[in-house]
Amino acid sequence: MRLKNIKGARGKVEVSSYVILEPNKYKGKYHELFNNNNPIRLEIGMGKGKFLIESAKKYPDINFLGIEKYDSVLIRAVEKLEELDLPNIKLIKADAFLIDTFFDKEIDLIYLNFSDPWPKKRHEKRRLTSLPFLEKYDYLFFKKPHIIMKTDNRHFFEYSIKSLTDYGYKINSISLDLYADEELLKDNIATEYEEKFHSKGSKIYKIDVYK
Amino acid sequence: MRLKNIKGARGKVEVSSYVILEPNKYKGKYHELFNNNNPIRLEIGMGKGKFLIESAKKYPDINFLGIEKYDSVLIRAVEKLEELDLPNIKLIKADAFLIDTFFDKEIDLIYLNFSDPWPKKRHEKRRLTSLPFLEKYDYLFFKKPHIIMKTDNRHFFEYSIKSLTDYGYKINSISLDLYADEELLKDNIATEYEEKFHSKGSKIYKIDVYK
Repeated sequence: MRLKNIKGARGKVEVSSYVILEPNKYKGKYHELFNNNNPIRLEIGMGKGKFLIESAKKYPDINFLGIEKYDSVLIRAVEKLEELDLPNIKLIKADAFLIDTFFDKEIDLIYLNFSDPWPKKRHEKRRLTSLPFLEKYDYLFFKKPHIIMKTDNRHFFEYSIKSLTDYGYKINSISLDLYADEELLKDNIATEYEEKFHSKGSKIYKIDVYK
Repeated sequence: MRLKNIKGARGKVEVSSYVILEPNKYKGKYHELFNNNNPIRLEIGMGKGKFLIESAKKYPDINFLGIEKYDSVLIRAVEKLEELDLPNIKLIKADAFLIDTFFDKEIDLIYLNFSDPWPKKRHEKRRLTSLPFLEKYDYLFFKKPHIIMKTDNRHFFEYSIKSLTDYGYKINSISLDLYADEELLKDNIATEYEEKFHSKGSKIYKIDVYK
């Protein structure tokens, strides 16, 4: 995502009641934070929050957490949320690389939506489906590890199919053209990026895996 | 593949020295048949034989077997072979469904090139990457099971990724657009069908898996 400096973004983000600035304080206590025992789903790299906010509206009995590093993006989600009253969503301002220090077996499902593909081999470790991240995710899941990813980047998708299955994940479903698959599309919630790239004619890839 | 009746095809196929009519006679003896201990690779559903014949020419130190049920297709491979002198290729006229009765741990690699996708759910068992076939293949392999498949059929490819990995296969390589991947394309031998559908603009999918 291209980043712009947005004046005052940091301040607005930091005072929002939707935003968690010190996620490791809630380690093992996220259900207390949400004040219920509903499942918790986590989107890593939530960008401007369209997917997460629509999900939280659609599924009030599920809690949604988003992680995003950049204030300039997070502010867009915060602005939308300040006009709503959604008890089942929180945003974590943090670098995903530290994710294994934030949770203690509390997450039911991880969403990876249009993550940065980091195409250069020397950046492989930064890809959110690389081995170092898959190892971190093991500390997050409450029971059965479960990841759903979408991307429009063919090489990143090929890489992820291999990386996930190498690590022992099994495939629930896979689509090499989400927008041609009516069955999968029925419940699809598009991200901002997804809408833009689908409308430009890019194929959208999706995989749903579990261990 | 659309089938035509070709006059005299059966007779010509049956007298060819390249054709094996009773493959179970050679069970455990295929290396004797080829008179060497070179690896044996098997293409199931070899059609008119372009892939197999080009492979046999290119790799004289590997033996190639093809299985094909239909005389009307097999005759095209036989006609090409009768003009050549290739000691490292044999064609089996048989139904692939019986494949586990033909071999005794003698195959190094199975090629599935543009196999019939059998799109209807009730025909799933006929797909060459369905569980019943994967179970049969286990009886064929000399050491490590190794399958390379190509197809232009998206749903069949999605199905195969899931079916192969569910069965414990790991991915060596995967391409969702073979003709855009220079590295994979370097050694690619195209089938008749592949040339036709690639030239019409279809994406060609490829996966290489092992256990």
